[in-house]
Amino acid sequence: MIVDVTLRQGIADPEGATIERALPALGFSGVSNVKAGKSFRMTIDAESESAALEKATSLAERLLSNPVIEDAAARLGERVAT
Amino acid sequence: MIVDVTLRQGIADPEGATIERALPALGFSGVSNVKAGKSFRMTIDAESESAALEKATSLAERLLSNPVIEDAAARLGERVAT
Repeated sequence: MIVDVTLRQGIADPEGATIERALPALGFSGVSNVKAGKSFRMTIDAESESAALEKATSLAERLLSNPVIEDAAARLGERVAT
Repeated sequence: MIVDVTLRQGIADPEGATIERALPALGFSGVSNVKAGKSFRMTIDAESESAALEKATSLAERLLSNPVIEDAAARLGERVAT
């Protein structure tokens, strides 16, 4: 399961802004809207994919992100057979 | 375009390990292999999707990751019409 945590719309993103400013000097043009975020990969034991997704979503919202400034979304990565 | 940066196999991940250790006390069981990573979202002006992907991959490997300890992969997010 993969949880993506991104800054909410309108929250200042100094890391993304710094990367964006540095790019032209490093030879990359035409890149805009750079946003930095975090991701977490994990294995979840669950009865079904939907149960795992629900668990990951709850975990993402309660523990892995700060809901005041961040959005969190869980998605299925590769499935591990048991 | 979304660039995912993850720690290479075998590199210690104290952030992931700490999250994993904290989970049972917070009511989440059955979660293992927690790995922390970074993600970057950006808009790239390019002739085609493959050109954008190539640019993002080069940028990911050269600037957004430390190839000694991290793997970087670029993938297409939503497409912005022009």
